[in-house]
Amino acid sequence: MTRGRRRSESSRRAILDAARVLLLEHGYERLTIDAIAAQAGVGKQTIYRWWGSKGAVVADAALAGGLVPPLIPLPDTGDIETDLRAWLRAWTEHLASGVGRSLILALTAATAEDRAVADVLYERFTGPHEQLLRDRLDSACAAGQLGSEVPVPTIAGVLIGSLLYRVLSMQAPPTADDADMVVRLVLAGAA
Amino acid sequence: MTRGRRRSESSRRAILDAARVLLLEHGYERLTIDAIAAQAGVGKQTIYRWWGSKGAVVADAALAGGLVPPLIPLPDTGDIETDLRAWLRAWTEHLASGVGRSLILALTAATAEDRAVADVLYERFTGPHEQLLRDRLDSACAAGQLGSEVPVPTIAGVLIGSLLYRVLSMQAPPTADDADMVVRLVLAGAA
Repeated sequence: MTRGRRRSESSRRAILDAARVLLLEHGYERLTIDAIAAQAGVGKQTIYRWWGSKGAVVADAALAGGLVPPLIPLPDTGDIETDLRAWLRAWTEHLASGVGRSLILALTAATAEDRAVADVLYERFTGPHEQLLRDRLDSACAAGQLGSEVPVPTIAGVLIGSLLYRVLSMQAPPTADDADMVVRLVLAGAA
Repeated sequence: MTRGRRRSESSRRAILDAARVLLLEHGYERLTIDAIAAQAGVGKQTIYRWWGSKGAVVADAALAGGLVPPLIPLPDTGDIETDLRAWLRAWTEHLASGVGRSLILALTAATAEDRAVADVLYERFTGPHEQLLRDRLDSACAAGQLGSEVPVPTIAGVLIGSLLYRVLSMQAPPTADDADMVVRLVLAGAA
């Protein structure tokens, strides 16, 4: 590795670290490219060389820095209702913490702001979580716990979307009861 | 009205007009307070005197400038499935236009970024739309078209949230089929 590349790599790392620290401290809205540059000890132009927007830096910082929630396991106990409840309840617990909720709000803002960032976040964050859910729903269909004709992508979207809407509109964490009610409603419809 | 108040009011109007024009032209991500100030012919400080953030200006511009979609009527034909389908399909048509979708994404970003903006947007935009939906679901319960125990707020959140999640994750408009499938799933669950 040349000296230039090493310096590049260390600037990149400093920028991502700065973005992560500032995001956790101040939230997404008050985060600026200027503040990230100052905290990282680099010029603004260095940031714009690699990232097109604030959302793009935040997405990378969250993904690289381990801020995004890991895949919450969705085991197959043979009872789809139990499994979905446990999974959705684990999500509501994650969203009950201020840090967990801020991060989801920041990633939502970054997604809504910038199409390219939305693609990266879907591929590396939202998509894998959604896939886990779809796989479990597929196995429930195969096991005869759900009708074979149920629209698995619709169900997955409903489960995720209803929690997201609640976090956005209420700016408060959904509760375990909310999670249970959504699961019950959806499974009654898909029986 | 004093000369000062008149000038204030005309600056305020110029700022909101500038924000609306720039939002429609360039989208939320590329919109900056600097650009709004330049377009409106005012200093940045004038903007910060009245609004705390970009999202706050955009929310006001959208609300004052008639950009936000008006309440889509949700009539009571006596058939809740027909009515919900028509309402959700009208929303998917709104989201099928680039301008309609950009605006929802901008308002979502503003909501996710700033708690105070989220409260204003919920009170003046999302809340009234959600209330319309809840009222129609309540009347369906009263008419015996839905079970009397169904969780109306959960159903409303599911219908809105699933469309929102689709717009955010796919960055593509939901289709009429998507709308129909969500309605069918939810009503089967609530029967």
